[in-house]
Amino acid sequence: MSNGAGGRKKNTELSTEPYKGVRDFYPEDQEVQNYIFGTMREMAQKCGYAEYNASILEPAELYRGKNAENEEIINEQTYTFTDRGEREVTLRPEMTPTVARMVAAKRRELSFPLRWYSIPNVFRYERPQRGRLREHWQLNVDLFGSDSPAAEVEILAMAWGLMSKFGATKEDFEIRVSSRAFLNSLFAQLGLPEEKKRQVVHLLDRKAKITREEFAEGLEAIGVSEDAFSPKETPADVAAVLAPLHETGFDNIVFNPSVVRGFDYYTGIVFEVFDKHPENNRSLFGGGRYDNLLAIFGQEPLPAVGFGMGDVTIRDFLAVRNLLPEYVSTTKVYLAVTSADLVFEAMKLAGELRQAGITVAVDLGDKKLGDQIKAADKQRIPYVIVVGEDELKNGVFKLKELKSGEEREIKRDSLASALT
Amino acid sequence: MSNGAGGRKKNTELSTEPYKGVRDFYPEDQEVQNYIFGTMREMAQKCGYAEYNASILEPAELYRGKNAENEEIINEQTYTFTDRGEREVTLRPEMTPTVARMVAAKRRELSFPLRWYSIPNVFRYERPQRGRLREHWQLNVDLFGSDSPAAEVEILAMAWGLMSKFGATKEDFEIRVSSRAFLNSLFAQLGLPEEKKRQVVHLLDRKAKITREEFAEGLEAIGVSEDAFSPKETPADVAAVLAPLHETGFDNIVFNPSVVRGFDYYTGIVFEVFDKHPENNRSLFGGGRYDNLLAIFGQEPLPAVGFGMGDVTIRDFLAVRNLLPEYVSTTKVYLAVTSADLVFEAMKLAGELRQAGITVAVDLGDKKLGDQIKAADKQRIPYVIVVGEDELKNGVFKLKELKSGEEREIKRDSLASALT
Repeated sequence: MSNGAGGRKKNTELSTEPYKGVRDFYPEDQEVQNYIFGTMREMAQKCGYAEYNASILEPAELYRGKNAENEEIINEQTYTFTDRGEREVTLRPEMTPTVARMVAAKRRELSFPLRWYSIPNVFRYERPQRGRLREHWQLNVDLFGSDSPAAEVEILAMAWGLMSKFGATKEDFEIRVSSRAFLNSLFAQLGLPEEKKRQVVHLLDRKAKITREEFAEGLEAIGVSEDAFSPKETPADVAAVLAPLHETGFDNIVFNPSVVRGFDYYTGIVFEVFDKHPENNRSLFGGGRYDNLLAIFGQEPLPAVGFGMGDVTIRDFLAVRNLLPEYVSTTKVYLAVTSADLVFEAMKLAGELRQAGITVAVDLGDKKLGDQIKAADKQRIPYVIVVGEDELKNGVFKLKELKSGEEREIKRDSLASALT
Repeated sequence: MSNGAGGRKKNTELSTEPYKGVRDFYPEDQEVQNYIFGTMREMAQKCGYAEYNASILEPAELYRGKNAENEEIINEQTYTFTDRGEREVTLRPEMTPTVARMVAAKRRELSFPLRWYSIPNVFRYERPQRGRLREHWQLNVDLFGSDSPAAEVEILAMAWGLMSKFGATKEDFEIRVSSRAFLNSLFAQLGLPEEKKRQVVHLLDRKAKITREEFAEGLEAIGVSEDAFSPKETPADVAAVLAPLHETGFDNIVFNPSVVRGFDYYTGIVFEVFDKHPENNRSLFGGGRYDNLLAIFGQEPLPAVGFGMGDVTIRDFLAVRNLLPEYVSTTKVYLAVTSADLVFEAMKLAGELRQAGITVAVDLGDKKLGDQIKAADKQRIPYVIVVGEDELKNGVFKLKELKSGEEREIKRDSLASALT
């Protein structure tokens, strides 16, 4: 690299690295994203959820709420800046406040139960580490307007169904369910003040990320015995949700009192999906019931249950089990040309094939035939058709399958059907 | 709204408005986006383009380049802020620098001609106005590695094909083509200094947004006659691209010397697609050849041609012609229940239908049957099945089409086939 410009950085060459903690998606990576998003979308649509979306830019107030603690989270864990109109703007760190805002804005026009999903990107300002980047995508599924435990049953069945669609067996994962009601009754028994309650919730939320010893020490520091959180009789609200799920055979959905979820807005059932793989033993995603979120807009409570499933954690889940799909180009056939003069003839043939629904790339004749075929193979395009003077005159083309090397001679008007 | 909290804003209710200049996408809006994105994706894939993506966060240096003028654009027209690691970060205002960065990073591993597309959201910090919001989405199509005019021909044919796929006829739009080479030869004839050239380019770029008088006055102020830009003989590089296109019948692609495109990085052919509708007479999108962009990464030039098509302008194009698709829910059938006790039975039936590929929403029994059906209708779900004691016992269900009001009695195991 040249360094002749002295202190003026802008005259030296730029780095080709992306910004810290975010990812570039080359076609091979994007295909994995598309597979993950496609699977999420299919599940959501099958269960009657409609897609919505919003901008990543939100007024910072949306995340502040009433706790001074949130102020700290906003300032330290989100991307928040002031625009020239003196508005504080945040790159959304999660989608739930946004969906609550949108529902609140049109509450009277919407009909309930309302089922919505989205696959937004969300931003966290923190040290990048395994499974936690500064930007990730997250399926958000929310069911508004029902108090019934049937809402939790549906949401949990969807979380279970998604894992299954991604290729997981019952042995691969466990869904741990608890409830804020249970936690509150426990706090009442222990007689903990507000501040200590919050400390316990945050410690429990970090449980999967810290060692057993750190957890025990943390509880000791707060002055609570570890015993209080060891499995005991299933609380009634959790049991009402688990019963129909167990009847359907979802017996890896279990009560576990240590599940709390970090967000303050949960009001009832909370759950987390755990990967049981020894190399990826961690919480994958979770959700719960949050009935009071619309209060921040000065509205009556609206029952709501939902979950969020991130692309990074599910990718890790798939990778550790070799479940990631193999890359195949979305382009079916490559038209190679024996001479640059024939490019426009090749484009005409490409047009005919595209009319028939085939995806086709045309070489522009900048290099030799052999190198054109190599380029197609490198891009994982499965078929090549060579376009030369003779082929155009005779109306018969060689269709080559690159993987097998197999070649067939096919008439021009039969090429499309040979490729479908 | 209550206002009891005095000066403390965080205790008053929040607004449900989105951030200024960005949009919320309710399901009806999102379906239009999905239609637009789906049409773009289909065209790109048909022509052999592979999808890539990147984060909206980019190092600010990526947009600075060598001109002091760019510094101004960065500071005044983009969202740029400094993170706690003292990195200057920009929300990408366009995708071309990002795709150039990604290609530069893996240039040796990639094979050319390389065809890539993406539909990213991009951000501009400016006063929101018709067709120009602070955030919009933009199809980016780029073809790297070919010097041949065939590259421009392909890109222009794709732009044309996209308009056609969106329902436009030849009479609806015109693609105006010019070239930077032509512009440079014109500047040489006029003997203009650098500063005046830049002023002319920027004035031409704004031509469609200002009045005829403002344009003439602008040229006069710079000291250039308007004559210089009135149509004349087609330059050779433009003619080489237009000839094969006219042969294919794309005769609304024409030479027009006033097309320049705003970006400094264009090096050859430039083009703009114009809407000819009297109520929307404006530039819709454009592109061109940019062979030297990889120089900012200290690399040899790489031939490149591409274009970007925004969602907002194409939406306006469709809206003014009534070409926007009618909203239909992605959910095919709604299961209404005669009693809340039957919800789990309805969920079982839903599971059977979903197995057969049907999209199904289940009412959770929170309201009366009639209101359940109204809710389905309001969400534009086309069919309802009523789930009651009798239906479950007899295994025969009423399938109601909401639009026609038509009702059919169908056996449980024939419901799926009746709905496909």
